[in-house]
Amino acid sequence: MELDKNHIIYKGAELFHPGFSVDCVVFGFHNNKLKVLLLKMKHTQYWALPGGFVEKEDNVDDAVIRTLQSRTGLSDVFLHQFHLFGDSKRIDENQNKELFKYFGIKPDPSNWLLQRFITVGYYALVEYSTVTPQPDYTSDACEWWDIHDIPQLIHDHNEILKKGMEALRMHLNYHPVGFNLLPPKFTVPELQRLYETILDKKLDRRNFQRKMLSYGILKKLNERRTGGAHKSPTLFKFDLRNYKKALKEGLKGGW
Amino acid sequence: MELDKNHIIYKGAELFHPGFSVDCVVFGFHNNKLKVLLLKMKHTQYWALPGGFVEKEDNVDDAVIRTLQSRTGLSDVFLHQFHLFGDSKRIDENQNKELFKYFGIKPDPSNWLLQRFITVGYYALVEYSTVTPQPDYTSDACEWWDIHDIPQLIHDHNEILKKGMEALRMHLNYHPVGFNLLPPKFTVPELQRLYETILDKKLDRRNFQRKMLSYGILKKLNERRTGGAHKSPTLFKFDLRNYKKALKEGLKGGW
Repeated sequence: MELDKNHIIYKGAELFHPGFSVDCVVFGFHNNKLKVLLLKMKHTQYWALPGGFVEKEDNVDDAVIRTLQSRTGLSDVFLHQFHLFGDSKRIDENQNKELFKYFGIKPDPSNWLLQRFITVGYYALVEYSTVTPQPDYTSDACEWWDIHDIPQLIHDHNEILKKGMEALRMHLNYHPVGFNLLPPKFTVPELQRLYETILDKKLDRRNFQRKMLSYGILKKLNERRTGGAHKSPTLFKFDLRNYKKALKEGLKGGW
Repeated sequence: MELDKNHIIYKGAELFHPGFSVDCVVFGFHNNKLKVLLLKMKHTQYWALPGGFVEKEDNVDDAVIRTLQSRTGLSDVFLHQFHLFGDSKRIDENQNKELFKYFGIKPDPSNWLLQRFITVGYYALVEYSTVTPQPDYTSDACEWWDIHDIPQLIHDHNEILKKGMEALRMHLNYHPVGFNLLPPKFTVPELQRLYETILDKKLDRRNFQRKMLSYGILKKLNERRTGGAHKSPTLFKFDLRNYKKALKEGLKGGW
């Protein structure tokens, strides 16, 4: 359910698990750029990661799926829980006061929303072109931002985003990535550009191709990308059985 | 502070962050076996992972450090947060009732301890020989168990342990491990046995040596292990600067 702000403020203590929230770093890939989905909090200058609360009977994972669905319109998204943020001073109380002020609300200091919150971060990988960004009741914009151009975010959201980016880069070393970011058919150079964009560095072409093919997660198609200026490169798709196996067990090449 | 059970039950709602706990998978290495520290809950047949609650003004990380210190006597432990367990049905209510019954306590159903709990799992790596296991106020034993011989644990603690083990194995692929599990000076075969024990499989000797030395985290000493039946192998220690760098950035060999 999509709740209005009064409901959240005055009924939240009955509805949600206390002192606990979820925050999502939604990555999208577009024109060889990595983008992140941000919300602009109503009546303020603050941008924030999409997030939400967990209903009392709801699994945390399901609450995250619901949050993402309502912000992106997508129901089948690759999600990875990456870190719990548990510092006691992570919420900026003055920013919270400002938010409430602009909403025209002055809740009792014992209100559930003014207590300490622990939050868990998930990152999501989505196909940029399939997303219709939707602001929620607290925000008046929901937009893609270039990873190199992230504004000052509310509370500790810049740290959450940074940690989500680090987690994604680390996971690239032992898990397959790409199924949710590339179109169904792609060339190895296109996959390489995705990796280069995430890692923010150039990779050696031969080395990339050799390593990537050795993982067994790509299926060569009997088709080529046509229409380019140069010779037409072979198209691949992911071998979903091996891809899912590698997601679970890690890529080959470990110990 | 180490609290008694009455304090926890009747004052806990004022003292602790609501509906939130921490659980620790403490790994120790001994005689080429991997061990896990477990507590036996008082008056019951249940074994459990060491865990605790987070005081209202306390960082989650600090609460975990304190929990470990009180169970192991160690203050400087390698700790890694690995997963949040957020399923709404993760607590077995009948097991909780049994625990309370044996304590001779029948709290009000609205008591904070009888609400839903979300828990975060950390694993710790400790030198087995330096630990003095200490039961807490809820337990009458605190013992090392062989990883292959874990009993039925309370609630979802078997799942938490399994996930902690998977996380440790995965981290072995891109992070250095060993500093907290081996004595200060060790041979490469001793390090290999640690890896084999964690991974629960044999590794190729030459391959292990080549790969491990290529990471630059080992410092060759001008000493040899003497007293063995065969030729005396060279001793190494960890190069702590490179080791810490690799902990932060990952081992070489990624993309």
